[in-house]
This record gives sequence, C-alpha cells and structure tokens, in this order.
Amino acid sequence: MLGLDPDPGTLWPVAVGGDEAGEVPEGERDAPASRSAERAAAAVERHCRAAIEAAGRACVGVKLQLACFERLGAPGWSALELAAHAAREQGLLVIADGKRGDVPATATAYAQALVGTVATPFGEVPGLGVDAFTANPLLGVDALAPLVEAAASARAGVFCLVRTSNPGAAAVQDRPSPDRPLHEVLAGMVHELGRGTVGEHGLASVGAVTGATRPDLLARLRQLMPHAVLLLPGIGAQGGTVDALRPVFAHHPAGGLVTASRSIVDAGRAAGGDPASAAAHAAEELRERTWALASS
Amino acid sequence: MLGLDPDPGTLWPVAVGGDEAGEVPEGERDAPASRSAERAAAAVERHCRAAIEAAGRACVGVKLQLACFERLGAPGWSALELAAHAAREQGLLVIADGKRGDVPATATAYAQALVGTVATPFGEVPGLGVDAFTANPLLGVDALAPLVEAAASARAGVFCLVRTSNPGAAAVQDRPSPDRPLHEVLAGMVHELGRGTVGEHGLASVGAVTGATRPDLLARLRQLMPHAVLLLPGIGAQGGTVDALRPVFAHHPAGGLVTASRSIVDAGRAAGGDPASAAAHAAEELRERTWALASS
Repeated sequence: MLGLDPDPGTLWPVAVGGDEAGEVPEGERDAPASRSAERAAAAVERHCRAAIEAAGRACVGVKLQLACFERLGAPGWSALELAAHAAREQGLLVIADGKRGDVPATATAYAQALVGTVATPFGEVPGLGVDAFTANPLLGVDALAPLVEAAASARAGVFCLVRTSNPGAAAVQDRPSPDRPLHEVLAGMVHELGRGTVGEHGLASVGAVTGATRPDLLARLRQLMPHAVLLLPGIGAQGGTVDALRPVFAHHPAGGLVTASRSIVDAGRAAGGDPASAAAHAAEELRERTWALASS
Repeated sequence: MLGLDPDPGTLWPVAVGGDEAGEVPEGERDAPASRSAERAAAAVERHCRAAIEAAGRACVGVKLQLACFERLGAPGWSALELAAHAAREQGLLVIADGKRGDVPATATAYAQALVGTVATPFGEVPGLGVDAFTANPLLGVDALAPLVEAAASARAGVFCLVRTSNPGAAAVQDRPSPDRPLHEVLAGMVHELGRGTVGEHGLASVGAVTGATRPDLLARLRQLMPHAVLLLPGIGAQGGTVDALRPVFAHHPAGGLVTASRSIVDAGRAAGGDPASAAAHAAEELRERTWALASS
C-alpha cells in the first residue's frame, strides 16, 4: 500500500511548479488565504498523482490520509477526491485512512461519506466511494455496525484499529482488561463483526490495523482474527521491518497489507536524486521483500 | 450547546427553498451529482444558519457534526466553514465534533485542520479555527499531545472521549482494565493532559465527552477530572435527562456543557408548527433547566 500523507511544505518540486527545489517565486507566495488553499490543494493533487505514477505499479493500492487533505479545507477535499480517482484509473485499490468512529447515527453519516450515498432534495450525492477505510472501535460494536454494514453493501472493507503503531498505544491498547489486553478484546470484536462476510478465499471484509512496530503481537492477533486482512503501518519511518511479519501471512498471501508512506514518497530526500525514481525503487524493493515473505 | 447534525433529507423547508413541506419541484431533483452536492450543501448551510438564528440565543455555542458535512464532499466542507462563521457572527462558541485521533504525525495534521494553519509554498492556509473539538483517546497520550498542544496555542479546548452515550460503549469503555474501568483510565489521561492548562476559574483546556445517558458514572468522573469541562451528549433523543447531571457542576457552573441536537432542531417535527419557533422554545427550555441546576 502506497501511503499518501501529503505535507504541502514538502511536496515534490514537479507538483509545486516552481524551480527544481520547489521554490515558488516570491511574488506568488502571499495570495489571499482562499487562493492559497486552492493552489496548495492543486499542488497536493499533482504530488499524489506523480507519486501514484512513480510507485503505483509496485503497490496494490493507495492509503490516503484524510487529515492531510482536510487541513486544506474544501479544496483539500476536492484534492482527496481527485487523488482517489487517479489511483483508481491506475487500477489501484483506495483506502481512506480517517480512523472514524462515532455513535450509531453519526457512524451512518461517516459510512455515507466513505462508501455510500446520501439522499438530498436535489438527488443522491455519492461519497468518496473508496474500497476500504479505517475505523476506530472505542465506541463499541453498535457504533461499528453501520460502518461494517455499509461497507458490506458497497463490497468494501473496514480496517478497525486493534493495535496501532505509535509508542503511546501501549498504555491503552495493551492494558489488561481484565484477563487479556484491550487489543485482544478489539480483535475479538473484529472477528465477530467479520464472521458473516468471509469470502471464497477465507478473507473477511472486516480487517484490522495492527502496527508493524510490535511484531511480537502479530502471531496472537492472527490467531484471534484468522479471516481478517491486517493493515500494517509502521514499516520504515516508524522502525518496523518486513521480516518480522511472517505470522500475518500464515493463512493467505493476501492476509496482510504493508503500508508505507514516508519511506516511499520521501525516499529521494534520503537517497538524493529524482523523487519519482527513488520512490519507484523504494516501493519495488518493499514489494519484493513483502511478496517473498507472503508467498514463502 | 446547539448540536448541528444536518441530514440533507430532513432540512427545514425554508432551507431547501421548495414549498412548505420542503418538496423540490420534480424537474430540479436530478441534477448531475456535483451540482446536487453543491445545492444540497447550500441548503445545509441555510438550515444551519436558520437553526442558529432561531435557537442560538439560548445556547453558548454550536457543536458541528463533521460527518454530516463530509458526506457532501468539498461543498459540504465549505458549508461547514460557513456554518462555523455564522455561529461566530452570533457570538457563539464553535465545537467541531469529529472525534479525530491518529498517530502523532497525523494528529498534528488534524490539529492544523481544526485550530491551526499549515505552511504551503503559496502561503499559510488556516484551518477551521474552532474554539474546541472532540478527540478519540484510543491511541494514547502521545497521539493526543499534538492536539492538546495545538489547542493550547490557539486558546482552544479539546474534549476527549471518556464515556460516550451509546449503549455499545459499555463493552469497551466500562471494561475493568484491570483494576478500574477503561473510562476511568481515560479520565486520568484527560486530567494529566490538562494539568498545565488550568485557568483562573479552575477549568482546564482539556475536557471530556461524558455521555448523559449514564449519569451514575458522572460523580466519579467529576472526581477524577476536577478541572475538566464535561461535554454531555445524550439528552433528549438518546434518553438522558438534565436533572441527573448535578455532580457535573459541583465545582463550577461552567463545568458542564449540555449538547442537544435532534431534540432542538427537530422539535417542530414532534410538536408540529414552525421549526424555528419550536427549536427556539426547546433550546430555551433546556437552557433554563440546565442553568437552574448549574447555578443551584
């Protein structure tokens, strides 16, 4: 999975349309705020499109980080829609990474925004139409149900947070509660919610986010969620490695989706050289390592 | 708090611009999707503006449900910005209810979207600029920190989910973990995060969402978070009552914010008559009951 978390301050120069370093001529830097947002969002979209063209062929899909688009307001949301469209045009799956979660009535509205449509007096309005999205399970099963149901209707998937990749996750998600860590409770919810959705390949439409930064937990989580596709952030910039992921692929080579953002898109910054060829190279290398592991 | 969770299917007729029942003439119903989204978003904005004009004077602020705007895409995000602007023009506080939460790098992007700005090659782009927002603490303290810090810099507040109002919350948030329920652990996090932010009135900038549907928990939660402002959803449509909220106001009459959405905005549907005067009446009644309790 190619993670796209575009930071308008570190876009590829080709997207900004300035000189080779992406510097914009001085007179163009201080447009009115609304114009700045529009121009920045257009640059973000060009950046995403360029990254998809460069690295997309080594990936099964893109993971769009909603926060990074939302900070550019309405033009940012348009850029999100266009980036999703660009990915689909290349035959890539699209995951909206927004980690939404709310009480059931509101969860229904999020489901409409992500994989559904909403009825209005002026006709149906379609949402993003993504292939899968991430969800936060803190509010419990009744709050996840509208998301899971809407995803199933749209033939899309849900990835519930079970064990995230950040250090602070431990104090909440690894808490004994009381007989087993909270993340195992959440894994049980994922398994139950996905029970009716298992397809011919033995995979459910309800998956889990399980950070690659704690590979020691993955064998147990795979056992608790035998049918779930595990979305694995934390490789590269956050310190996780592919080699530790073997248990994830125990049942099926598509049982895990490795997602990498900065280590692909910003590969050119570390290695020097053209950002696009550095990204293509980093993505291809990650694909080879993951595939070797998954199919072994 | 006036909760605005606009459903494009049940807007006030005055907002839709059709006949008295809000019916749009047949020929105008099937515009192309992008045009539908724009027209629906404009109607949502008019609906919010009318609700704010009708019921705003009985409220200290509005709580905007981000999901309800996001489902209309980029035009929906514009409507969100305009609704926030309309509330501020009336001297009302604005809470963005999006329950965001993500790993630290992404939490920083959400903070920029809500209360900050983001640097772009085309100048700074401001976010929504709200007075407070809701956040999901499942990812732990390191993930909340960028939100809390950005809010403090912007003189804004954060409401962390501690005990939500939906039935399914019990199985996760009330779980013994191991010596005390998870919601008490989250309350401890809120208290710690807010410690350095307590102002002259004894209130911190880090508050908590504590559903009014479980009033039996509130005395204990108040004890664990003596300086937190508690945001209290669940009154009205979800079955909570104001009278059970006494412990919330033990230290300060501004220690609790009752938020009601459907029971105000949809009051006209139950009672009949003009939606605006029904909403004004419902909001005023709630204000009186809450204020009587808070100041007693």
